[in-house]
Amino acid sequence: MPVNKIDLNSDVGESFGNYKLGLDEDVIPLISSANIACGFHAGDPAVMRRTIAIARDNDVAIGVHPGFPDLVGFGRRNLDASLEEIKDYVTYQIGALQAFAAAEGVEVQHVKPHGALYTMAVQDPAIWEAVAEAIAAVDKRLILFVLAVKDRERIEAISNRYGVRIAYEFFGDRAYNADGSLVSRKEPGAVIHDPEMVAEKILKMVKEGRVVCKDGSEIEMAADTICVHGDNPSALSLVSKIRETLQASGIEIVAPQTFI
Amino acid sequence: MPVNKIDLNSDVGESFGNYKLGLDEDVIPLISSANIACGFHAGDPAVMRRTIAIARDNDVAIGVHPGFPDLVGFGRRNLDASLEEIKDYVTYQIGALQAFAAAEGVEVQHVKPHGALYTMAVQDPAIWEAVAEAIAAVDKRLILFVLAVKDRERIEAISNRYGVRIAYEFFGDRAYNADGSLVSRKEPGAVIHDPEMVAEKILKMVKEGRVVCKDGSEIEMAADTICVHGDNPSALSLVSKIRETLQASGIEIVAPQTFI
Amino acid sequence: MPVNKIDLNSDVGESFGNYKLGLDEDVIPLISSANIACGFHAGDPAVMRRTIAIARDNDVAIGVHPGFPDLVGFGRRNLDASLEEIKDYVTYQIGALQAFAAAEGVEVQHVKPHGALYTMAVQDPAIWEAVAEAIAAVDKRLILFVLAVKDRERIEAISNRYGVRIAYEFFGDRAYNADGSLVSRKEPGAVIHDPEMVAEKILKMVKEGRVVCKDGSEIEMAADTICVHGDNPSALSLVSKIRETLQASGIEIVAPQTFI
Amino acid sequence: MPVNKIDLNSDVGESFGNYKLGLDEDVIPLISSANIACGFHAGDPAVMRRTIAIARDNDVAIGVHPGFPDLVGFGRRNLDASLEEIKDYVTYQIGALQAFAAAEGVEVQHVKPHGALYTMAVQDPAIWEAVAEAIAAVDKRLILFVLAVKDRERIEAISNRYGVRIAYEFFGDRAYNADGSLVSRKEPGAVIHDPEMVAEKILKMVKEGRVVCKDGSEIEMAADTICVHGDNPSALSLVSKIRETLQASGIEIVAPQTFI
Repeated sequence: MPVNKIDLNSDVGESFGNYKLGLDEDVIPLISSANIACGFHAGDPAVMRRTIAIARDNDVAIGVHPGFPDLVGFGRRNLDASLEEIKDYVTYQIGALQAFAAAEGVEVQHVKPHGALYTMAVQDPAIWEAVAEAIAAVDKRLILFVLAVKDRERIEAISNRYGVRIAYEFFGDRAYNADGSLVSRKEPGAVIHDPEMVAEKILKMVKEGRVVCKDGSEIEMAADTICVHGDNPSALSLVSKIRETLQASGIEIVAPQTFI
Repeated sequence: MPVNKIDLNSDVGESFGNYKLGLDEDVIPLISSANIACGFHAGDPAVMRRTIAIARDNDVAIGVHPGFPDLVGFGRRNLDASLEEIKDYVTYQIGALQAFAAAEGVEVQHVKPHGALYTMAVQDPAIWEAVAEAIAAVDKRLILFVLAVKDRERIEAISNRYGVRIAYEFFGDRAYNADGSLVSRKEPGAVIHDPEMVAEKILKMVKEGRVVCKDGSEIEMAADTICVHGDNPSALSLVSKIRETLQASGIEIVAPQTFI
Repeated sequence: MPVNKIDLNSDVGESFGNYKLGLDEDVIPLISSANIACGFHAGDPAVMRRTIAIARDNDVAIGVHPGFPDLVGFGRRNLDASLEEIKDYVTYQIGALQAFAAAEGVEVQHVKPHGALYTMAVQDPAIWEAVAEAIAAVDKRLILFVLAVKDRERIEAISNRYGVRIAYEFFGDRAYNADGSLVSRKEPGAVIHDPEMVAEKILKMVKEGRVVCKDGSEIEMAADTICVHGDNPSALSLVSKIRETLQASGIEIVAPQTFI
Repeated sequence: MPVNKIDLNSDVGESFGNYKLGLDEDVIPLISSANIACGFHAGDPAVMRRTIAIARDNDVAIGVHPGFPDLVGFGRRNLDASLEEIKDYVTYQIGALQAFAAAEGVEVQHVKPHGALYTMAVQDPAIWEAVAEAIAAVDKRLILFVLAVKDRERIEAISNRYGVRIAYEFFGDRAYNADGSLVSRKEPGAVIHDPEMVAEKILKMVKEGRVVCKDGSEIEMAADTICVHGDNPSALSLVSKIRETLQASGIEIVAPQTFI
C-alpha cells in the first residue's frame, strides 16, 4: 500500500424529498470520494443528480452507497435478505447512480455498502462476495470498499474470483480490538471523540500501516480510504483537521482509482 | 416507414415481491419488444432480472417502462410532478434496468413511459420532451416509444433536438377519433373486443398506413410498434391471432432497433 | 362566531425516521391545535407517538393531518385519486392516529387535510365531502378544518349531511382575493412576510370578522382557527408575535373543541 | 380449554393495489376469524375496507394482522427492529384497522402478528410482550394470537401483566417436535400435505388436547384457534375437509371472543 496517498470518503446524498440531511456542500470539497445514497435507505432521484453535480464540480470521485430498502430505518437495521436479493438490490442501485453519473458527465468509481448491509458483510463475507458478484456483472471497473481487517485472505479471494478491486477502509474515530475488528458501539470507548487523537491515529495508519488497539497492543492495519462524516459543523472541523494533519505530513488526499 | 416490418410490444415484469401479475412467460415469446417495469409503479429488482432473462432467452428486445412512484395506484393516476422530477424518475429507472441488462448480457433498446406518465405526455408533449432529454443524457441509442398521432411536427422536433429516435405506437384494440387521437375510455366503443377486428385493423395500419376512425372516416396513421397485452389467456390468444394475421401477409415481426 | 376565542393550528410531527423536520418542541407550546402527519406524506409511527406526547404535555389538542401517499413529494403534488381512495386514505390515517392517542391517553380533536389534498378540496368541495364522510363513519366528534371562504353554503350542507362540525381556517400570512379565495402563490404578493402586518391582519379577522383584500377592498371573513408555522426560528417568533397581539386584545387562544 | 369449540383463522386482505392475492371471498365463509393485513407487509386501505365488509357479511370476526414495513419481502424477512419500534408498528396497524372496522360497523376481535414478526416472537417472547403492551395501551379487549407451546408460563405472565387475553394457535399442517415447537421448514416432513392427516391431527388436538410429534411421542398441546389457508383451490378444499371433520365430531367452529 502506498504510504503517501490516502482517500477520504464520506456518506452524502442522504437527503430525501423535503428532508435535508447532512452538510453535503461543505463536506464534499474536503473529501476525495463521495458515497451517494440511491433511494433505498436514503436519497431520491433529484438528490442523486444534485449530489453528483456537487462532487463533479469539486473533482471528487463518486460511488454507489447501496442500502436495504428500509427508508424509515435508514438502512441501519439488519434485514434477513437472501444473497440473491442483496445482489439484486446492489445491481439496481448501481444502475440508478450510473445513469445520473452519465447524465452529469462523470463515471462512478466505487461501491460502498451502507449501514446494516456493511456491518452484516463484515460479519458474513458471503455478503461481500454477493456485492462483488453484482459489481462484476455490471461493471468490473467499480472498486468495492471493504472494512480493513487483519486477515485479508477471504477478501482477496473474492477480489480475484470476480476481478473486482478492493479499497480497504479505516475508521479513525473508532477503537480497534487486538484482532483487528472494530470495538462494538455498545462498549464504552468504541468511538473516539478527541480530534487530535483521531488525526494522530489516521496519520499513524497511513504512514506506518499500524493501529494502536483498545488494549494497548499495536497491530498491522493498512487501508486505502478513511471514513469521515459531514453531519454537523464539528464533524466538518474534524475533517479539516484530518486533512491538515495528513497534508502537513506530505500525504496526498486522492481518490483510490488513482492508486489501486 | 417500412410496410413489411412491425414491432409488437407488451408491458411485462409487473409482478412485485410475493405478487404475481401477467403471463410473462407466455406473452414474451409472442412479442418483439418487452417493456419492463422498474420498481416505481410495479416490478422489483428480482422481477427485473428474471424478466430480462426471459426476454433474452426468447431473443426479444427489452425496454425501460418508467412510471410514477405510485405502487398502490400502479402508476395509473395523474401526478402533478414537475418536468425536472419526471426527467429524474426516468433517468433513475433507465439506469436500474440498464444495470440488470448488463448483468444479463443484453442491451436496452427502448423507453416506453407507463400509465399516467404516458397519457399525460400525450396531453402535454413537454413531457415527451422531458423523457427524450433524460434519454439523450444517459444513452442516445435508446428509442422512445410515443403514441402515433397525425401531426408529428412537435415529436419530430423533439427527436431532432435531442438526437433520440422515435418509434410510433399504435393501439389495435382502441378506437380512433378523426383527428388521430384515441377515443377516451370513458366513451362507449373505445375498446375493441373482437379479435378479428383488432387483427384487421392492425393489418390495415401496417400495410396501408391508415386507420378507419370511429366516425367511419379513414385517416393516415403510420406506426412502428403495436401495443399488445399478456394479462390473461384471451389476451394471449389475441396476440397469437395478430401474429398469424401479420405473418400470413408477409409482415415480419421484429424489434424496432432493426428498422428505425 | 365568538370574537373572543381563536385557535392557532400548526403542522407538526413531520419528521420521518432519521429525518428531522420542524421545531415541534418549540412551536407546540405556542399553539392550541397540533396537526399531526400520519405516515403517508410525512411522519412515522415513532414520530406520531412522540408528537402526541408533546402536545399532551402542553395541553394542546391534536388532529389528524392526512395526506396523499407521496413521501418523496411531501404530499404537495396533486394526485388524481378517486373520492373513494381519498375516503380510504383519510379513514386509515384517522385510525392510525387514534390508536396512538388512546395509547397516550388523549383524544383526537380534528382532521385537517394536508398539502395537495387540502388545496384540491378547496378547488373541488366533493373532496371536503369525501373527508367529512370518512370522519362521520369513524368518529363524528372529529372537527373538520376547512379553508374559510365567503360563500359557505356548500360546506354547511356537507356539515349538516354528515353531522360533522367544521372549523374554518384563516391564513394570516396569505393575501386574499376579493372573492375570498387565497391569492395564488404564483402571483407576487401572495405571501405576507412582515410580522406586524400578519398580526394586524389576524387581529382584524378575529375582532371584526373581516379581511382587507389584495385589491384594497374589505370583505367579511370569519374563521375559527389560524394556520401558523414552526419550521424555523423566524416562524416561531411570528407565532409569538401573533399570540401577544391576540392576548393583548383579550382574545383567548384555545382549541376549537371548546367553542364550536 | 373447551373441547367442543374451536376457531379457524386465516390470513386475508393481502391483495395490494392492482395485485390480487388469495381467494378471500371463498375462504372467509369457511373460517371464524379473519386476520387482515394492514398495509405494511400487504394490504392497502381499499383492500382493508373491502375485506372487513366480506367478513362482516359472513359473520366472521376480524383481527389485525400487523407485519413489518417490508412490502417487497411480504413481511417474511427478519428485521432487527427494536421493541419500541415493534410496539409502534403494531399500534399503528391496530388503529388503521379499527377505523375501517368502525366505518363498516364491526369491532376488531384480535391481533395476530404476521410472518417474521410472528416467528421472531416465537423465538423471543419479549416480542409477544411488546405486542401485548401495544394492545393493552390501545384496547384491552383485543385478543392476542400466540403460537401454542407446551410451557405457557411466560405467555401467561405477559397476559396477566397487561390484562390481555391470549388465544393459542395450532398448526394442523405442521409437524411438531417433542418439546412442542414446530419442526423447522428447512427440515424434511415439516409440512403435512395429506388432508386426511391434517384433519385427524386437528381433531385429536381439539378433542384430546394432544399432538403426535415427529418422533412418534405424544404431548399435550391445547389450542383455541387453528391456522388455515386460502391461497388456492386445494387449500380451500382442505379447509372444507377440516370443517366437516370437526363438525361431524360435534365441534363448533366459532370465534374465540365467544369462549376465551
